[in-house]
Amino acid sequence: MTFRSTVDFLLHDWIGVESLTSRARFAEHSRETFDSVLDACHRVAQEKLAPSNRIADLEEPTFDGEKVHLPQSTIDAVRAQAESGIIAAAQDYEVGGMQLPCAVQMACTATFAKASLPISAYVGLTRGNASLLMVHGTPLQKKVFAETELSGRWLGTMCLSEPQVGSSLSDITTRAVPDGDDFESDPFGPRYRLKGNKMWISAGDHEITENIVHLVLAKIPGPDGRLPAGTRAMSLFIVPKWLVDLDDTQAIRLGGRNDVVLAGLNHKLGYRGTTNTLLNFGENRFPVRGAPGAIGYLVGKPGEGLRCMFHMMNEARIGVGLGATMLGYAGYEASLAYARDRPQGRPVGPAGKDPMQAQIRIIEHADVKRMLLAQKAYVEGALALGLYCARLVDEQRTGAALGATEASQLLEVLTPIVKSWPSEYCLEANSLAIQVHGGYGYTRDFPVEQYWRDNRLNMIHEGTHGIQGLDLLGRKVRLEDGAGLKLLAARVADTIQRARALDGLAEHASSLGEALERLRAATDAAWSTGVPEEALANATPYLQAFGHVVLAWVWLDLATACQRALAAGRDADFHQGKLHAMRYFFRYELPKIDAWLGVVASRDPTCRDMQDTWF
Amino acid sequence: MTFRSTVDFLLHDWIGVESLTSRARFAEHSRETFDSVLDACHRVAQEKLAPSNRIADLEEPTFDGEKVHLPQSTIDAVRAQAESGIIAAAQDYEVGGMQLPCAVQMACTATFAKASLPISAYVGLTRGNASLLMVHGTPLQKKVFAETELSGRWLGTMCLSEPQVGSSLSDITTRAVPDGDDFESDPFGPRYRLKGNKMWISAGDHEITENIVHLVLAKIPGPDGRLPAGTRAMSLFIVPKWLVDLDDTQAIRLGGRNDVVLAGLNHKLGYRGTTNTLLNFGENRFPVRGAPGAIGYLVGKPGEGLRCMFHMMNEARIGVGLGATMLGYAGYEASLAYARDRPQGRPVGPAGKDPMQAQIRIIEHADVKRMLLAQKAYVEGALALGLYCARLVDEQRTGAALGATEASQLLEVLTPIVKSWPSEYCLEANSLAIQVHGGYGYTRDFPVEQYWRDNRLNMIHEGTHGIQGLDLLGRKVRLEDGAGLKLLAARVADTIQRARALDGLAEHASSLGEALERLRAATDAAWSTGVPEEALANATPYLQAFGHVVLAWVWLDLATACQRALAAGRDADFHQGKLHAMRYFFRYELPKIDAWLGVVASRDPTCRDMQDTWF
Repeated sequence: MTFRSTVDFLLHDWIGVESLTSRARFAEHSRETFDSVLDACHRVAQEKLAPSNRIADLEEPTFDGEKVHLPQSTIDAVRAQAESGIIAAAQDYEVGGMQLPCAVQMACTATFAKASLPISAYVGLTRGNASLLMVHGTPLQKKVFAETELSGRWLGTMCLSEPQVGSSLSDITTRAVPDGDDFESDPFGPRYRLKGNKMWISAGDHEITENIVHLVLAKIPGPDGRLPAGTRAMSLFIVPKWLVDLDDTQAIRLGGRNDVVLAGLNHKLGYRGTTNTLLNFGENRFPVRGAPGAIGYLVGKPGEGLRCMFHMMNEARIGVGLGATMLGYAGYEASLAYARDRPQGRPVGPAGKDPMQAQIRIIEHADVKRMLLAQKAYVEGALALGLYCARLVDEQRTGAALGATEASQLLEVLTPIVKSWPSEYCLEANSLAIQVHGGYGYTRDFPVEQYWRDNRLNMIHEGTHGIQGLDLLGRKVRLEDGAGLKLLAARVADTIQRARALDGLAEHASSLGEALERLRAATDAAWSTGVPEEALANATPYLQAFGHVVLAWVWLDLATACQRALAAGRDADFHQGKLHAMRYFFRYELPKIDAWLGVVASRDPTCRDMQDTWF
Repeated sequence: MTFRSTVDFLLHDWIGVESLTSRARFAEHSRETFDSVLDACHRVAQEKLAPSNRIADLEEPTFDGEKVHLPQSTIDAVRAQAESGIIAAAQDYEVGGMQLPCAVQMACTATFAKASLPISAYVGLTRGNASLLMVHGTPLQKKVFAETELSGRWLGTMCLSEPQVGSSLSDITTRAVPDGDDFESDPFGPRYRLKGNKMWISAGDHEITENIVHLVLAKIPGPDGRLPAGTRAMSLFIVPKWLVDLDDTQAIRLGGRNDVVLAGLNHKLGYRGTTNTLLNFGENRFPVRGAPGAIGYLVGKPGEGLRCMFHMMNEARIGVGLGATMLGYAGYEASLAYARDRPQGRPVGPAGKDPMQAQIRIIEHADVKRMLLAQKAYVEGALALGLYCARLVDEQRTGAALGATEASQLLEVLTPIVKSWPSEYCLEANSLAIQVHGGYGYTRDFPVEQYWRDNRLNMIHEGTHGIQGLDLLGRKVRLEDGAGLKLLAARVADTIQRARALDGLAEHASSLGEALERLRAATDAAWSTGVPEEALANATPYLQAFGHVVLAWVWLDLATACQRALAAGRDADFHQGKLHAMRYFFRYELPKIDAWLGVVASRDPTCRDMQDTWF
């Protein structure tokens, strides 16, 4: 089965994106327009990104002290992707966008990510940056910065972390002070001088585009000159690598260099196609108007930096989850092809093996099927969840009032899952893809080892696994008296009810019902004493169990769509395969939740009781 | 706690190696001699191997068409290790050995492996090669080949796999034909000409030593010129890179080049310090006496190749498991040090977090403790199991009749576990070590990403995970009417009984008893229909569950030793830490067996039912 068949099944047979065309925003679209965009992305992905993926890994970015060097194939591939119009795909027609639904745009993103996640990251980051500005920027900030990014002329970054600050963002020390008495009268927005160091900045420097638009989180000191504490102390700034002038016709021209300097490239385990940088702001290497400090233009109001960022967080996290998923998918495809091609071993018969028989292809061995089925269940399930969440973003933005509210609440609860679950299980899929290849999978002659290395980042960036667990159990399932969890439970119950009536799904419907009950009971038990330390000590096992229940639900719901298609006599192999992956998930994966929920429900104190001196 | 304290605890407080000194073979040993050998290995490991480990990764071996180039630090480190006498450590005094127990020798091996597994592999392979020859070789084969390896002057390899043959060894096509009419009168053993290709040969070529002794599995064609089928069709040959002459004084001199050629180096994900090669035998690049074919001397009888190899298999698999363990251990140490050093975040209080408070070290967060505890439980448990199995090897070799038989039977059942469990869980430990480091763990500025890459090999080589599962469920638990499993159950029952009487261990004793019952019941249920396809379709989940039960047993037994030490007032922190790791294993890990055993016991057909066309 091709990836595209699965995408079509998910978009059309499952989440029904075509129905969105009845809404004003998507009125000019149809299945044909969606198809043609996906086709176009597929072409660029196959022609430009896929052939560049291994090169981008082997020829790691280098820095000569002045400029960053990337393989020309990476530069060409990023440019081709930027020129495809994908950055603006979901934006309004009037700013050059296509007004695509988020679900279709995410399917496009996935298409690029499967060909080369590291190369596609430049454009993904830029889309997030520009989308944020389109919501929170002033008209001129949108015109000059966001729209130039949307067109693919400039690329963008998100500068949050610092060398000493990753998960604990409120401890950043990058400082922004008003730049002169007239700082409030700059047409680009209140003008500040920034000083500080930003770490782990992907796409933080390169020569792919003439300019880079950094979005930088920093603190404005109080009257006493000290930096305020807490999450509401952070503000957001546009800091372009090259300053920008508008000429008399309001055309955009590059001015002088801003005081942003590449301090060094990080040398990574994987994901090497994306430069990852330590950036120094305001070290006076490029003084602006004779003074140190990088020029930054305030976005939104002072102290609203994190709020602006959070606006993009759900989509960014869906994006990370989909990226992890597509690495998993690419590995699945590679190992499936290998297993179909490689002869080795013989069937186990009642009398053992007969060495005189011809060898069989390894796909015929039960254990190899197990490894392929597990990958299929992980990657197709994760892809479905990602597109489902993207569909919720569409509902949030263009749905009727109640639907939009519900979509938002559901999205809050699902976001930690859509980010974390693929990061963990599609990494496991990549490990299985290596295993299917045997020794060959351990060499760089096959692509799977790179996928596995590239994927290891996804449990770390955009909120670590531990942070996602705390977000889910500490915050998301408790928001508005648990509204998100209740909504999720209602949707699960709806799926269960529909599945009960269908051939061969009743058993799985019961299993899912029990799993949901156990999850709810464990959630209550975790918080029954009301002591955060007790509840949250097992937030990660909770995240894992929650993820498995969500994926079981997704799979059962997919199974109902497959049963409908089979009843209609459509493509038996395709739908039987998905039904079988569902069975695998229910029989081999869902039972794992008991071990995780056991420690959650008992508020097991083992981890927090551990003493430093006992290690 | 240092690694050495744990090794001492395991060797002396737990498996009681000192008691071995009452046996004739070890009569000249004492705790002091064991200590001094371990000290000496530690010094070489720290001074030579540890500083070379990253260099060996970054400066991958290269081949200029004539010679293989390795970093000088690798060459020096291998030579220093070879000169330490470790290769012959367990051998007789009269061949330059130390007559060390296998358990102590394995502890030495572990010491080197923790400093650099890839560099220590050269010596490990040589030890296996020479040990095999010391058992199966002729007196002259031992003197010329084995003893020269034992002294560290030459290194050795094992050449089994071929490009088209990994798990299915009996399909090798390397061919060995008698070399001339006088082939049986060669002093080094029956002389053959070998032609074929051997793949994945670690240490297959290098310039570290003047010669390399390959042990090569090949088939002798039948009278019809065709290669026989099956596992009993393979024979074993000594194929030195350089041919050997004995001069009049019987001194060993290098003769001409044998017809063994390096076809290429494999470029790997990790484990880069060990060259891994494709070797061509008999391609006529170096004709010997004007004819093609690599000269090889038969070891043992024709058709006994696999039997000879199997003799070393248990030890080789303990070695792979210990290697995986030590990578896990090294990552544990690195992430523990990082977690103790890195400030970030604040404690969760009843009112959330107070941003005005100072940050805490990340080791104080429950989720970081969880990641460190999991690593501790995995790596210390795996190390204990490895040394326990090594102690069984000692029992097998030097114990009284009944003890030796029981040790052999137990070892058969434990070998698939001691190889597979660390390969899977100490790899997971390495992933957790990366996670503790956050973004820094993803860079090559910290050692943990290399450990993770290096460790990924261990589920593949020396019998894949899938093969270990088939070996365990298909063969080992059924041998001699399940004698090995019964013995294991008896030892587990003994531990349970002792633990019941001890403070705080009764609960865990009960859990282990139930787990053992479930494992036994699942074993029976798997085979209840007597159909191998049904039983073996879930051999890997069985392997995983079996492994977790074994590790729970190991941990409970360790806990009894800790309780004794605590009762005697000894080192509270050290023993409390181990008790707490045991608790972690019982509460967070052991419950996972239910999901695995569920599919085993029901002979779940999902995987074998999957169709190629459904993927």
